[in-house]
Amino acid sequence: MELKFPTGFQAAGLHSGIKPEAALDLALIYSQFPCSAVGIFTTNQVQAAPVIYDREILARSADVQAVVINTGNANACTGKAGLDNTRQMAVQAAEACRLPPDSALVLSTGVIGVPLPMDKLLPGIRAAARALSPQGWTAAAQAIMTTDTRPKMAARTARAGYTIAGIAKGSGMIAPNMATMLAVIATDAVVPAAHLQDLLHSAARLSFNRIVVDGDMSTNDTVLLLANGAARIQIGDEQRDEFETLLQEVCTELAQAIVRDGEGATKFVQLRVTGAVDPVSAAQVGRAIATSPLCKTAFYGADPNWGRILCAAGYAGVPLDAGQISLWIEKLDGSPAIQLVAQGEPVPFDEQQAAALMQLPEWQVRLDLGSGAHEAVLWTCDLSEAYIHINGHYRT
Amino acid sequence: MELKFPTGFQAAGLHSGIKPEAALDLALIYSQFPCSAVGIFTTNQVQAAPVIYDREILARSADVQAVVINTGNANACTGKAGLDNTRQMAVQAAEACRLPPDSALVLSTGVIGVPLPMDKLLPGIRAAARALSPQGWTAAAQAIMTTDTRPKMAARTARAGYTIAGIAKGSGMIAPNMATMLAVIATDAVVPAAHLQDLLHSAARLSFNRIVVDGDMSTNDTVLLLANGAARIQIGDEQRDEFETLLQEVCTELAQAIVRDGEGATKFVQLRVTGAVDPVSAAQVGRAIATSPLCKTAFYGADPNWGRILCAAGYAGVPLDAGQISLWIEKLDGSPAIQLVAQGEPVPFDEQQAAALMQLPEWQVRLDLGSGAHEAVLWTCDLSEAYIHINGHYRT
Repeated sequence: MELKFPTGFQAAGLHSGIKPEAALDLALIYSQFPCSAVGIFTTNQVQAAPVIYDREILARSADVQAVVINTGNANACTGKAGLDNTRQMAVQAAEACRLPPDSALVLSTGVIGVPLPMDKLLPGIRAAARALSPQGWTAAAQAIMTTDTRPKMAARTARAGYTIAGIAKGSGMIAPNMATMLAVIATDAVVPAAHLQDLLHSAARLSFNRIVVDGDMSTNDTVLLLANGAARIQIGDEQRDEFETLLQEVCTELAQAIVRDGEGATKFVQLRVTGAVDPVSAAQVGRAIATSPLCKTAFYGADPNWGRILCAAGYAGVPLDAGQISLWIEKLDGSPAIQLVAQGEPVPFDEQQAAALMQLPEWQVRLDLGSGAHEAVLWTCDLSEAYIHINGHYRT
Repeated sequence: MELKFPTGFQAAGLHSGIKPEAALDLALIYSQFPCSAVGIFTTNQVQAAPVIYDREILARSADVQAVVINTGNANACTGKAGLDNTRQMAVQAAEACRLPPDSALVLSTGVIGVPLPMDKLLPGIRAAARALSPQGWTAAAQAIMTTDTRPKMAARTARAGYTIAGIAKGSGMIAPNMATMLAVIATDAVVPAAHLQDLLHSAARLSFNRIVVDGDMSTNDTVLLLANGAARIQIGDEQRDEFETLLQEVCTELAQAIVRDGEGATKFVQLRVTGAVDPVSAAQVGRAIATSPLCKTAFYGADPNWGRILCAAGYAGVPLDAGQISLWIEKLDGSPAIQLVAQGEPVPFDEQQAAALMQLPEWQVRLDLGSGAHEAVLWTCDLSEAYIHINGHYRT
């Protein structure tokens, strides 16, 4: 199925030579029109050069027309030389697209602490500018992959005619503490610059931040939103609801794609925590479960080991009444759930039926805290030997 | 080497039938004299029945003369029936030792949410009482093992003649969030009850809590300290320093033994974080590294991937100046270190030499934050495929 990407944007992805063999390692996204642009960046105290640079550019001016992204090298912990290299990348991208020098943003991902091979990158950027096309998004999505096994793209078109689309990369979800996640979302709607940051924050809160990346981000994590106005459809107060909904859908689809492609993952698990005193508590309990190696290995082994889930909930740092907690596992299609715990005590259940459900590629854990009316939904994956293999035996 | 255990204590370990085959699963510790006793318990909001029970007993009276410990069943999430079972175990242990009913404590570890097999446990406790002997500590240490591969014991005798000794179990250190850790420490010194809790807290802070168990404990984690006074040596103000030192040594040896026997662990890694603005920040940075799956898989793969260590430090929640951080790996014997990072930037090093060092069974990561004069030492282990196998394929 061909995705529709927003008007006025072009993209390219190619092999510049940072990565060995012919792997795509450089992407360029370009807008024919100046964009309002905002970003959400890692909260890690150790920030990569492109994060520092992009923050500076966005603080100065919201007029952005290009984003250049390299993989294979994070350009983090590279000091002043690293920052100079990022600036050179941005200036080269702008120049190659015939733009003012401060109108390009830079994203990098890959190994930390190694100088960028500028002799390969700069010619690569020039070649990418020549390769730009409205159909180039798939190549760009491929070029930003690291340990990802497939490109991640999502798009929505509003009835009014504008489009919101994005690409993302990341598969370190099993190690949420250091997931390197990048996403670029573009729209041809006319969105007031003043609203853009709020819109992105709201959408990210229930998508990228619900895959346990927030507060624990890597040195490079970045989500960008660019609006070039090419569809000439104004997002005023009346259009805002629909825009928010579509942006949320694009972000959620990309965030889920990251989890589905988690390093070594064999299962996609939705965690629905209900009955909390407030939404923050619900999310905090979900995050503890989503991060727990013992829960994740039980998911992998299709073991309905509900004790590990209750235990993780118990150390989430949220006041709980253990005697009020109930727990179910269930398919995502709404078919009847299997209850494992009722009011803090085990419910007899068919172990084989539960294990069979947990062997499916996706299912839901529903945990009711029995203390309030609020809920949160998070997404996680299981933890398999393949994760150890990927991260123990390869430098990433 | 035979360890010396304190005077007036007896112990036993045997197979009661909770675990299959002939595995030891029940331990009893008994003192001929009433003990001052204190405990540190899990801070998990979901607490096992024995944790609730022991807290109650210790709050009421510090006179304890027996501790009964079963493995194979945590007696957690078992409701009122679980609490009744714990009480029955305590009463049976006290009766079998001819003690008042509220003078026994109970520890349990194993699977969550399954009723205790009291028909096996109660006769087992009676048999254990008959088997008590001053030489029984090794059997007791064996009987409290779960996924542990070896028993954990430590002892120190002061020049004055009193002894501090303990046994511990736990090997979930790789999953610090849910490590089930139990330890019982006994001394024949006369220690004022008023000081006992402080002494145990101080010793635990730099030992059991430095293996990343505090604040994230399981439903059952417990450390007990019993003092029966049989050596008739008073720990007054002058003796306190030596007692603290020896207690610290026993706790540290037991805590390190837990890490060394971590599930699937192939390496023991000491993390020394220096140059912090205060000791709490240093420990927090160490804890982030000790918990990070990406750092632990790099330790497993003997990969001097210092970027993962700096990244974990960066999200530890402590203000950092990335440009001031330096990093070394080194043997524990004081031989020259290999520097990987100086003031936030990579130092050229011999990759093969670094990998060879990291292939040793134990070594140190030294991270200097360059912001102050305080430090902390923590202990962790690597994360291997065997961890996934143990936890993905077996119900623990």
